Amino acid sequence: MSPEEFRRQGHAAIDWIADYWASLDELPVRSQLAPGDVRRLLPASAPEDAEPFDAVLDDLDRVVVPGLTHWQHPRFFAYFPANSSPAAILGDLLSSGIGAQGMIWATSPAVTEVEQVVLDWFAEALRLPEAFRSDGPGGGVIQDTASTATFTALLSALHRASGGEARVSGVGGTQWRVYGSTQAHSSLVKAAMMAGLGEDAVRTIDVDPATQAMDVDALRDAMAEDVEAGLRPVMVQAACGSTSTGAMDDVAAIAEVAREWGAWLHVDAAWAGVAAVCPEHRDHLAGVEAADSFVTNPHKWLLTTFDCSTFWVRDRKALTGALSILPEYLRNAATESGEVVDYRDWHPQLGRRFRAIKLWAVLRTYGVSGLREHVRHGIALAGHVADLVAGDDRFEMVTEPALSLVVFRLRAGDEQTLAAMEAVNASGEAYLSHTTVNGVAAIRLAVGSWRTTLADVDRTWRALQEAAVSHG
Amino acid sequence: MSPEEFRRQGHAAIDWIADYWASLDELPVRSQLAPGDVRRLLPASAPEDAEPFDAVLDDLDRVVVPGLTHWQHPRFFAYFPANSSPAAILGDLLSSGIGAQGMIWATSPAVTEVEQVVLDWFAEALRLPEAFRSDGPGGGVIQDTASTATFTALLSALHRASGGEARVSGVGGTQWRVYGSTQAHSSLVKAAMMAGLGEDAVRTIDVDPATQAMDVDALRDAMAEDVEAGLRPVMVQAACGSTSTGAMDDVAAIAEVAREWGAWLHVDAAWAGVAAVCPEHRDHLAGVEAADSFVTNPHKWLLTTFDCSTFWVRDRKALTGALSILPEYLRNAATESGEVVDYRDWHPQLGRRFRAIKLWAVLRTYGVSGLREHVRHGIALAGHVADLVAGDDRFEMVTEPALSLVVFRLRAGDEQTLAAMEAVNASGEAYLSHTTVNGVAAIRLAVGSWRTTLADVDRTWRALQEAAVSHG
Ligand SMILES: Cc1ncc(COP(=O)(O)O)c(C=O)c1O
Ligand SMILES: Cc1ncc(COP(=O)(O)O)c(C=O)c1O
Repeated sequence: MSPEEFRRQGHAAIDWIADYWASLDELPVRSQLAPGDVRRLLPASAPEDAEPFDAVLDDLDRVVVPGLTHWQHPRFFAYFPANSSPAAILGDLLSSGIGAQGMIWATSPAVTEVEQVVLDWFAEALRLPEAFRSDGPGGGVIQDTASTATFTALLSALHRASGGEARVSGVGGTQWRVYGSTQAHSSLVKAAMMAGLGEDAVRTIDVDPATQAMDVDALRDAMAEDVEAGLRPVMVQAACGSTSTGAMDDVAAIAEVAREWGAWLHVDAAWAGVAAVCPEHRDHLAGVEAADSFVTNPHKWLLTTFDCSTFWVRDRKALTGALSILPEYLRNAATESGEVVDYRDWHPQLGRRFRAIKLWAVLRTYGVSGLREHVRHGIALAGHVADLVAGDDRFEMVTEPALSLVVFRLRAGDEQTLAAMEAVNASGEAYLSHTTVNGVAAIRLAVGSWRTTLADVDRTWRALQEAAVSHG
Repeated sequence: MSPEEFRRQGHAAIDWIADYWASLDELPVRSQLAPGDVRRLLPASAPEDAEPFDAVLDDLDRVVVPGLTHWQHPRFFAYFPANSSPAAILGDLLSSGIGAQGMIWATSPAVTEVEQVVLDWFAEALRLPEAFRSDGPGGGVIQDTASTATFTALLSALHRASGGEARVSGVGGTQWRVYGSTQAHSSLVKAAMMAGLGEDAVRTIDVDPATQAMDVDALRDAMAEDVEAGLRPVMVQAACGSTSTGAMDDVAAIAEVAREWGAWLHVDAAWAGVAAVCPEHRDHLAGVEAADSFVTNPHKWLLTTFDCSTFWVRDRKALTGALSILPEYLRNAATESGEVVDYRDWHPQLGRRFRAIKLWAVLRTYGVSGLREHVRHGIALAGHVADLVAGDDRFEMVTEPALSLVVFRLRAGDEQTLAAMEAVNASGEAYLSHTTVNGVAAIRLAVGSWRTTLADVDRTWRALQEAAVSHG
């Protein structure tokens, strides 16, 4: 592709995206295809000879779009959002064009330093503790996902608790224990599996049935019991905004218990943490001052195209101690001076693209005030949904609304609830997901997109009401 | 940003990239900045109010470009390349615009199925074993990096060797052993650390001093000795194209030894594997038919913007067995039918963007023939460098050229070799990296960019010759 050709095709790709977005409202939210439908439309082998880039664009319309569930659709309410935005897309495009690989400071100083600055900015916007800023012993890094953040938190915890032994001789000698509530995200168990502790090392603590928050007394008892039995608590995970219902654990109370046994406290605020840009939602994070690490995902609610998970630690030495490796070919004067940070020691990967540009672009082109507005917009729409639920006798709330997440059900029962949801999903009108709360089935409606309007919410509600007639 | 504004700014971002590329030849390859220089140019806090996107573009020129080491520069010869290309950039841009999150098949069938097809295409283009194709018990997945691929290979190996026990009760009960040569990439040790085995679990096997390939007899002895001592071999890594010198391990011979002890065989061809698109370079992978897993990085030499690491396994059950987790909110009919693949069980992360579009775009817009041409271009230029080395008495080759990598030194000694390299790097004229081979310092020159011409190589060589006058 010549430079002129790149400009031409690049403009065409930008226009394709703008047109795709303009068409979203007309598309079924959930893909209507069956397994194999996409594969069948593609040839068995790569072409021997070059095809024009336009052929790729054509196939996006022909093959890909029908096979998409449209996460950027204004009536996508399932799971948690994975919001994309113009600023983030263009920021990441620029990262691709620059094509720098920032495994160490020396291989592109700007990749590292812009990331440090942007994470400091964001920590300040969320009013995270000073200890997480890059000018002290802590610091932030962009992980790909919260799963990776939680995994690296656990590796850091093991490093600290073992006095550096774990990285040398493994985790075998000690019977480590990890704690989270029954509502902790599945990435906690996955982290324990990957770190070599196994699922059995995770002790799940009951929650208060009403709030779905961790029962801190139960945590205290469990830890004491485990220690008594010769097990060694290494990490406690507190959830600010659980996946199922947006439940908020009491971080301050959990911190106190974790401290008693010297366990690492990791706060998983993957979805809800970004709401702390609003002063009125900062209290969900109360107690984070005592956390050893904290993660929240701008790639969920905060307009930063997947992937972008912001992760901070109080003491970066625990993290880099667990992960650092210095082969000869990466030795360099800057690293040896100790004046720089080499991000390859902050995550499992070695190579890394210029991760910070898209978050930098989002923070600047929305401004913190624009991000507050975005968060408040989602929360207001969720409040409206809660009102609609309250106004229809066939429905009931299952938990209190949590920020922009509403969890409700049909009073008629589990089967009816799931059938109504499936009817809406199958129609393509909107897309919702389900969960189980205290043993009963529930529908989750998570608002997130900046495209979602009051009319979208109302339209989704009408679809649910109609489904309730058939299934309720 | 309105749709019109997105189009306008999107076109501006594309043009910025084209202009940046056009300017590369005039820029110093290695950033000339000192630690803190970039940070100092940025404000202490995120802006309260929105800034126009143009302000971000302006800061790229003012703050970022001087802080970059230009990996896309035609005279970037350090490490291994991280080639970007127009097709890949635009492919990934489209992925951002679509903004689908493909954690499971159901959340966007096309994300999964296009990836399966593209990995089948690529496996065929590299003539990888049938067993790696998606229509049998194996399959491929795009990992972010080779480090992650190697880590997941090790988790799969542990799963298989432990009969599923490792994921449940951890890796503690057994004294596992992992094998690689002294030239194995550092990600192998990092994988052992992350998996809870510790660095000490990796036994490094000596290499033949001439070829730098693993001494397979030494491997056989080491494994026998370990088994005798009660240790349990779990994985052997063979390197096709070592980081230091591009050394090629004898995969077939290693496979035989690994099989004796039932150890998983992982082939790390992160850099060199893509050369197998050329029939004349396929023999480096001889023996891969016996491998349990294989990784190569299109994001290195093969024009696919970072990150994109293609990873295949012979038996996907070992991989998903090690990593699968199924919380209630991800339960769905397609998964339960067993007819689909859910990629969240193939890697540490849960969420994932539409990873395959950029590789799809590369394979199509170059065609396999275009990729062959690209690989041959790099190898021819490296051959030219080897001739230049042979033609100047002050220099000598340290190892035979390996594909597009040339490793050489100044006969005068280590200090002179490193000083000459540093002089070239500091001048900004070209960028090279160093290594140590059999205890002596050497310069690595890895050709990779499609922008690199004979003139670029000659200019770099002249710079080295001048530096040799001062330092030789
Ligand atoms: C509370 C919580 N933690 C972690 C995650 C995992 O996110 P990721 O896909 O970034 O790993 C999720 C995803 O929904 C989540 O809700
Ligand atoms: C042989 C080899 N394996 C693995 C890697 C790690 O690559 P990645 O950055 O994709 O993890 C490299 C990087 O240079 C390499 O040369």
